[in-house]
Amino acid sequence: EEPKPDLVSGAGDTVLKFNVGGTSFRLRISSIFARSGEEKLSTFAQMSHEQRILQCDAYLMPQEEYYFERSSILFDSIFKYYVSGQLHRPLDVCPQEFSCELSYWKINDCVMSNCCWRGYNMSASLEELVAPKEKKIELHDRSLRSRIHQFCEGDGSLFSTLFTFGSISFVLISVIGLVLGSIHELQVPIRKTGGKAERILDNITLLNGTDVIWEPHPVFSYVETTCIIWFTVEFIVRLTVTPSRVQFLTGIMNIVDMIAIIPFYLEVGLALFGIDVASLSDIKGALLVVRVLRVLRVVRILKLGRYSSGMRTFALTLKSSARQLGMMGMVLSTGVVFFSTLLYFVEKDEKDTPFTSIPAAFWWAIVTMTTVGYGDYVPVTVPGKLIASGAIISGVLVLALPITIIVDNFMKVSGNIDTQE
Amino acid sequence: EEPKPDLVSGAGDTVLKFNVGGTSFRLRISSIFARSGEEKLSTFAQMSHEQRILQCDAYLMPQEEYYFERSSILFDSIFKYYVSGQLHRPLDVCPQEFSCELSYWKINDCVMSNCCWRGYNMSASLEELVAPKEKKIELHDRSLRSRIHQFCEGDGSLFSTLFTFGSISFVLISVIGLVLGSIHELQVPIRKTGGKAERILDNITLLNGTDVIWEPHPVFSYVETTCIIWFTVEFIVRLTVTPSRVQFLTGIMNIVDMIAIIPFYLEVGLALFGIDVASLSDIKGALLVVRVLRVLRVVRILKLGRYSSGMRTFALTLKSSARQLGMMGMVLSTGVVFFSTLLYFVEKDEKDTPFTSIPAAFWWAIVTMTTVGYGDYVPVTVPGKLIASGAIISGVLVLALPITIIVDNFMKVSGNIDTQE
Amino acid sequence: EEPKPDLVSGAGDTVLKFNVGGTSFRLRISSIFARSGEEKLSTFAQMSHEQRILQCDAYLMPQEEYYFERSSILFDSIFKYYVSGQLHRPLDVCPQEFSCELSYWKINDCVMSNCCWRGYNMSASLEELVAPKEKKIELHDRSLRSRIHQFCEGDGSLFSTLFTFGSISFVLISVIGLVLGSIHELQVPIRKTGGKAERILDNITLLNGTDVIWEPHPVFSYVETTCIIWFTVEFIVRLTVTPSRVQFLTGIMNIVDMIAIIPFYLEVGLALFGIDVASLSDIKGALLVVRVLRVLRVVRILKLGRYSSGMRTFALTLKSSARQLGMMGMVLSTGVVFFSTLLYFVEKDEKDTPFTSIPAAFWWAIVTMTTVGYGDYVPVTVPGKLIASGAIISGVLVLALPITIIVDNFMKVSGNIDTQE
Amino acid sequence: EEPKPDLVSGAGDTVLKFNVGGTSFRLRISSIFARSGEEKLSTFAQMSHEQRILQCDAYLMPQEEYYFERSSILFDSIFKYYVSGQLHRPLDVCPQEFSCELSYWKINDCVMSNCCWRGYNMSASLEELVAPKEKKIELHDRSLRSRIHQFCEGDGSLFSTLFTFGSISFVLISVIGLVLGSIHELQVPIRKTGGKAERILDNITLLNGTDVIWEPHPVFSYVETTCIIWFTVEFIVRLTVTPSRVQFLTGIMNIVDMIAIIPFYLEVGLALFGIDVASLSDIKGALLVVRVLRVLRVVRILKLGRYSSGMRTFALTLKSSARQLGMMGMVLSTGVVFFSTLLYFVEKDEKDTPFTSIPAAFWWAIVTMTTVGYGDYVPVTVPGKLIASGAIISGVLVLALPITIIVDNFMKVSGNIDTQE
Ligand SMILES: [K+]
Ligand SMILES: [K+]
Repeated sequence: EEPKPDLVSGAGDTVLKFNVGGTSFRLRISSIFARSGEEKLSTFAQMSHEQRILQCDAYLMPQEEYYFERSSILFDSIFKYYVSGQLHRPLDVCPQEFSCELSYWKINDCVMSNCCWRGYNMSASLEELVAPKEKKIELHDRSLRSRIHQFCEGDGSLFSTLFTFGSISFVLISVIGLVLGSIHELQVPIRKTGGKAERILDNITLLNGTDVIWEPHPVFSYVETTCIIWFTVEFIVRLTVTPSRVQFLTGIMNIVDMIAIIPFYLEVGLALFGIDVASLSDIKGALLVVRVLRVLRVVRILKLGRYSSGMRTFALTLKSSARQLGMMGMVLSTGVVFFSTLLYFVEKDEKDTPFTSIPAAFWWAIVTMTTVGYGDYVPVTVPGKLIASGAIISGVLVLALPITIIVDNFMKVSGNIDTQE
Repeated sequence: EEPKPDLVSGAGDTVLKFNVGGTSFRLRISSIFARSGEEKLSTFAQMSHEQRILQCDAYLMPQEEYYFERSSILFDSIFKYYVSGQLHRPLDVCPQEFSCELSYWKINDCVMSNCCWRGYNMSASLEELVAPKEKKIELHDRSLRSRIHQFCEGDGSLFSTLFTFGSISFVLISVIGLVLGSIHELQVPIRKTGGKAERILDNITLLNGTDVIWEPHPVFSYVETTCIIWFTVEFIVRLTVTPSRVQFLTGIMNIVDMIAIIPFYLEVGLALFGIDVASLSDIKGALLVVRVLRVLRVVRILKLGRYSSGMRTFALTLKSSARQLGMMGMVLSTGVVFFSTLLYFVEKDEKDTPFTSIPAAFWWAIVTMTTVGYGDYVPVTVPGKLIASGAIISGVLVLALPITIIVDNFMKVSGNIDTQE
Repeated sequence: EEPKPDLVSGAGDTVLKFNVGGTSFRLRISSIFARSGEEKLSTFAQMSHEQRILQCDAYLMPQEEYYFERSSILFDSIFKYYVSGQLHRPLDVCPQEFSCELSYWKINDCVMSNCCWRGYNMSASLEELVAPKEKKIELHDRSLRSRIHQFCEGDGSLFSTLFTFGSISFVLISVIGLVLGSIHELQVPIRKTGGKAERILDNITLLNGTDVIWEPHPVFSYVETTCIIWFTVEFIVRLTVTPSRVQFLTGIMNIVDMIAIIPFYLEVGLALFGIDVASLSDIKGALLVVRVLRVLRVVRILKLGRYSSGMRTFALTLKSSARQLGMMGMVLSTGVVFFSTLLYFVEKDEKDTPFTSIPAAFWWAIVTMTTVGYGDYVPVTVPGKLIASGAIISGVLVLALPITIIVDNFMKVSGNIDTQE
Repeated sequence: EEPKPDLVSGAGDTVLKFNVGGTSFRLRISSIFARSGEEKLSTFAQMSHEQRILQCDAYLMPQEEYYFERSSILFDSIFKYYVSGQLHRPLDVCPQEFSCELSYWKINDCVMSNCCWRGYNMSASLEELVAPKEKKIELHDRSLRSRIHQFCEGDGSLFSTLFTFGSISFVLISVIGLVLGSIHELQVPIRKTGGKAERILDNITLLNGTDVIWEPHPVFSYVETTCIIWFTVEFIVRLTVTPSRVQFLTGIMNIVDMIAIIPFYLEVGLALFGIDVASLSDIKGALLVVRVLRVLRVVRILKLGRYSSGMRTFALTLKSSARQLGMMGMVLSTGVVFFSTLLYFVEKDEKDTPFTSIPAAFWWAIVTMTTVGYGDYVPVTVPGKLIASGAIISGVLVLALPITIIVDNFMKVSGNIDTQE
C-alpha cells in the first residue's frame, strides 16, 4: 500500500520518509521535483510504493521509512541540496568520497555552488593528471616485442634493473664528461689552419700562437661517443617495441631523448660532407649553430627525469599550475616592462649609467623583483631609488601570491604520487 | 490543541519541540525569548499552536513536533546559540551556506562571536568585491548605443572579438615601440640649435657636435601617433555609449586610458603654440615636465589589465588586503627610518662612506630589509654590521607576516574569479 | 522512582540514559566513575533520581532520559572521553566554543590529548595576550585626575582627538627634523676652538679650516627643543594622572617615552656644568657617549607604536612567538658560528681575503644565510664555495621553518585585534 | 532468541541492528562479509545471538539493537567503509583518535583510500619519530652505575643541574676561545726555523722576518686543553655508565663528542713522535691535514644540540623530511648543472668572464637560484641574461615547493616536542 503522510502541512504536499544509515529524513516531493529529473531521488519519487521497495535497500515497517544504506552525515549535504537548491561541499570530507556519494545519488557535480566548486574540482583534475595515461599492454601478451617493452620499462627482473642502472650511469657519465671537459686543466690546445684543426704538442708553438683554441682532451670525445651509441641503441629499441609509435614520438621524455642524440649526428653528418664544425667557428653565422649544438648537449641531463620521482612530481606540479604560472608570468612581465621604462627615463642621463636602453633595464627589473639583487645595475638618483623600492615591493608580492596555489598543487601531486608507489 | 510539555523540569518552562530535517530538538521558550525578538523562532514561539502549524513546514503527529525542512547539522549551531547565547560558526561548513542558514532563521550575523567572525566576514566581503559592480544594461535594450556598448565590452560576436584583439594589439605595438625606441641602434642623432631640432645626416657634424642628442627613429613616432589615434577613438566611443558618464570617468581602467593619451595631446598642444618639447630640455624646470610626459607613456601597459584576468585578480587582492598592506607599509617605514638613523650615526664618520645622510641610508634600509642586498651601500664598522643584522632579521619578519594574510585573500579572490568564468 | 536499566550487558553495570539536545546517549556508570570525581557527570551519577531531575534541564518521561540542553555534536567529544579516557578536540569547532563546553561539564582541559592540546592551548593563550591588561578606572570616577587620564588615553571628545593628533604630529615633526638635519645642504659649518664652538659665516675661513665640522642648521634645534618640551609635558601629565605609578613606569611604551626625552636633558645638564657636548668629540671616550646620545633620539619614532594598530599587532606577535624566535635565534647563531669558522679556516690564507678573523666571517654568514648577499664578503676557493652553498641552504631552511609558526600566531593576533576594534 | 529482521528488502539479506553511542545503524550481513574476515564486526556477525550479547556492551530490548559504547560520529566512517568498501578519514577528527577507533573495530589501516592515507600516515610516523627510542634503565635500579648515568642525563638534582650547566659552559668557553683566537689583536707572531716554532718577542725580528706566522696567544691553548680534558672525562664517564655501549657509540650526539676531542689527541700524538703540527704546514700535503684538524674543532659547537630543544626540533624535522629534502636536492642539482652548462656556453668567450668552466658556473647557479645574488659572477650577454632569468624563476619555484611540506613536518614535530615537555 501507499505510505500515508503523517504530516499536516500548509500545502497538500506528500512527503517521502527516508532512513539513510539509521537517521530519518523527511522530504517534500515538491522539493524533489524542483531539481533535475534524472537524479536518483527524482526517479524514486515517481515510482509506486512496490517499485520503491525493490529500489531501496530495505523498507522499515514500523516507521514506514525507505532505507538506504549510505552515510547519514554525507546525505545531509544532499538533503540540504533538495531543501535549498544549493549544493555545498562539507569541508571535512575527502573530495573523492563526496564525489562517490554524488554519483550514487546521480547528482551532476556541476550544480555545486561556486564557493565549494574550486577545491573539489582541482582535486578531481589532479587525480586525473597523476593517473598514468599510457595504457599498458596486457600482461598476458607474451610476444617478444611486449617482453622487451616491459624489460625497458622495468619489469622488476635483475637484468631489467641492471639495464635501468646502466641507462642512469651513461647519462651521469655523459654529463660528468661534459662538465669536466670544460675545465682548462683537462683541455688541450688546438691550432686551426684553414679548415684543419690539429693538436699543438710543443710548447713553443703554443706560446707564440694566436690562432690557438682550447678543446676538451680527446678522451672525452671517446666517452661521449660511447654514451651516444648507448643512447641511440636504447632509443631505437624503445621506438621499435613501443605499442604506439605516434604516442611515443610525442612523449616529452622521448623528445628529450631525441634532442640529446641529434646534435652528435649533425656534427658527424657535417664532417662527412667535409666540414669540421670546430673550424666553422671562424664564420660569424656558423658560430651560432656550433654553440647551439654544443648547448643542446646539456639536455641529456633531463633524461634523468625518467627515473626520478622528484623531477616527475615537479613537472606535474608545473603542469597542473599552468594557469597560476601564466598569471604570474603575465603580471611579472607587465611589472618588468613598467618599472624598467620608468627607471630608464629617470636614470638614462646619469654618467656611466648601465641603463642605456629599456631592454637593458629589463635585466635590472628581473634581478630586483625576484630579490636576487646582483648589484651590477643599481639606480643612483633619488627618483630612481623610489621606483626601485616600488619594484622590490611589487616583486615580493607578485612572486608570493601565486606560489601558494602552486605549492598547494605540489602538495596534492606529491601526496598522490607517494601513495601510488 | 496546544502541545503538552512532556518535560518535568525544575522551572515551569514550556518547551518547544522541533524536528529539523529528521532530528528532534527541544528548546525552552525562556531561552528563545532571551535572544532578539525579531528572529524566526522568537516570532514562532509567540504564536498559537494553529498559527505555528501554518508557519512550519509540517507538524509531526505522534511525536507532537513542529517540522522544519532544514539541515539538522546546520541547525545545531543555531541551537547552541539559543542555549548559550554565543553564535559560533562550524568550521567545516562553507561560509556562504551558513550565511543562508542564518538568514532563514532571521538571525543577524552580527551576534556571531569574535573568534568566528573574521573568517566569515572576510569571505562575505570578498564575495561583494569580486561581484561586478556596474549594472549591465538590460539585454532587451536594442538601441544603437547599447549595442555599441556591448560590442566594446565584448558580446561574443566575431567583430567584437576582433575589436578586443585589435585593442590588445595596439597596446602591445605601442609598448614595443616605446621599448625599441630606447635602443641606441634604432636611434638617430638630432642637433638642437635655438628652438629648432634637426636630424644630423652627415657623420662629420656628428663627430664634432656637442649639442647632439639621440632620439628614437622617426618611424616610431608614426607608430606612436597611429596607436594614440586608435586609443583616442576607442576612449571617445566608450565614453559616448557608456550608460553612466560619471561612473565611467571615475573607473580606474578609464583613468588609465586617459593618462595614456593625454601626454601626446599636451605635446601636440605645446607644439601648436610654437614650443617644441624636445628643445625645452635646455630649460631646467621644463626638463622635468618633458620627463614626466615621457614617463607617463608607460602607463599604457596597464591598459592590458582590462583584458587579463591575472592582473584583475592581482588588483582585487591588493584592494581586499588594503588593511594588511597599510600595516606592512607602516611597520616597514618605521623600521626603515629606525635602522637608517641608527646606521647613519655609527657609519657617517667612516672614510668614503655612502651613508652621507639619513635619507641616503633609507635606500640601504629598503634594499636590506627586503633581502635584495645590492651591495652598493654596505656597513663597514662592527656596530654598523650589528645594526644591519637587526635590520635584516626585522625585514624578514615584517615582510613574512602580512603576506600570509594577503596570500589568503589572493587564494579566495582567485577561486571566486575562476568559478565566475 | 529509580530508572530501570533496559540493558542486558555482560557486567552488571547500571547505565545512565541521557538526552543531550535531542540525541540519546547511554553511558555505563562505571565509565563515568573511572574519570575525575569532580566532573559534572560524576557528581550527577552519584545523586538519587530526584536530585538528578532537579540538576538536569528536564526529564523525558516516555524514554526515561535525563535531558541536558546542550549541543549533541559537541557532547560527542565528551562522550568519547568517558568511553575511551582520551579527550580529543573536534577540529571543526571553534576552540573557544569547546572551552565553554568543557567548563559546562566541569572537565579540566588538562586531560586533553597531546595531539589536540597545542592548537587549543595556543588559541587560549593568545586570547589572554591580546586582552587589555591594564584595569580601566571606572567611568563613574569623575575626579579631575581620572578625567585627564581619560582625556590622554582618548575619550572620544574633540579636544582629546586633537591632543592625540598633536602628539602624533610632534613625533613626526621631531623625526622629520632629525632626518632633514642630516642632509649636508641643510647643515652649517662650525669651527671648534678649545671648548668653544662657533658657526663659520665667511667662506674664506671655511676653505682653509681644518677643524671644521658640519652641524644641522640652528632652526632644527629650535624644532627639537619645542618637540622635547611637548614630550616632557605630556609624559609628566600622564605620569601624574596614572592610577598606578609603578605599572606606568614599567610599561614598555612609557619607557620608550622616557628614552626619547632623557638624552636632551643630559646634554642640557652637561652644558650647565660648562661642558659642550659637541666639543667633547675631541676626547676618544666621550665621542662614544655623544654618539649614543644622538642615536637614542631615533627611539622617538617608536612612540608611534602607541597609536598604530599595525605596530601593536606586530609587537604582540613577536611576544607570543617568543619561543619560536628563541629557537630560530639559537639555531641561526649556531649556524653562523659553525659556517663562519669553517669558512675562516679555508679562506684565511687567500690574498686580500676579507675573512681575516672568525668574527669578520660572522657578518658574511648572517648576510648569506638570510639570502641578502651583499657581495662584499665572497668565498673564492672551491671548498669555501662548497661551505657557502651549505650555509645558504641551511639559512633558507632555518629561516623558513619557525616563520610559519610565527605567521600563524600573527594571523590569530591580527584576527583578534581586528574584531576588538 | 534470534533477532527478527524487520526489513523487507530485494535480496533476502539478514540485517544487523546496531546502536553505537545512542544512534541506530543497520548493516546488511552480506556487506560485512564482503570485507576482511578478521575485523570485529565480521567475527561478531558470525556469532549466535547469545554470544553477541556477551561481546557487545549491551543489548537494547525494545529496539532489539546491539549496543556499542563508541562515538556515533566516528562510527559513521566505519559504516561507510562497510557500505562502499572505501575507508576515508574524517578531516575534522584528530588522526590519533581515528587510529584508536580503527584498532577498536580491528580494521587494518592499510585499507584506507590513497587520498586520505597520506596525512594520516605522516602523522603516525612523526609520532614514532619524536617518541624517545632509547629504553631508560628502570628507576629502581639503584646501582652506582645507573645512578651516575641518571646524573649525567640530568636527574633533576642540584649537582646534576650544575653538571649540565658546567658542560654547556665548557662548550661555550671552548667555542669563544676558538673565535677569539682568530682575531689578529689576540695573536702573537711565531717564527719557524726548521721543525722548531718559537715566539718572536722583539719587534726588529718581526719587521724583517719573512717566515713569520701568527698564532693565537698561548693562553687560548691552556683554555683549549682544559676544555678538552673536561670533554674527555665527560665522554669516558658517559661511555662507562651507558647501559648499551654499541647504541652509545652509534648515537649521533656521541659521535659529535668524539669528533670534538679526537683532533686534539691526534696533534698530541704527533707531537709525541717529535712532529710539530704547526711546522708541518711547510709540506704541501700535510697542510691539508693540519687544516682539517683545525676545522674539525668547530664541530664542538654541535655539542650544544644535546641541550637545546630548538636544535633537536630542527634535526628531527630534517630527519622526517628526508624524502622532500632528497627531492629538492635532486631537482636543485639538476637545475644547477642545466643552467650552469647553458650559461657557460654562451658566456665563455666574453672578455674577463668569470665563467671559465662549468664547475665555476655551478657557484653562480647556486647563488642565483637561492636568490642570494652576491654579484661576483654575473652574466653580461643577452642570452646569458635570459638563461639567468630562467634560473632565477626556477630557483624560486624549486625552493618554495618542498619547503612547504618540510615546514608542515616542522610544525608537527614542534607541536609534539612542545607537549612532551
Ligand atoms: K639577495
Ligand atoms: K644580492
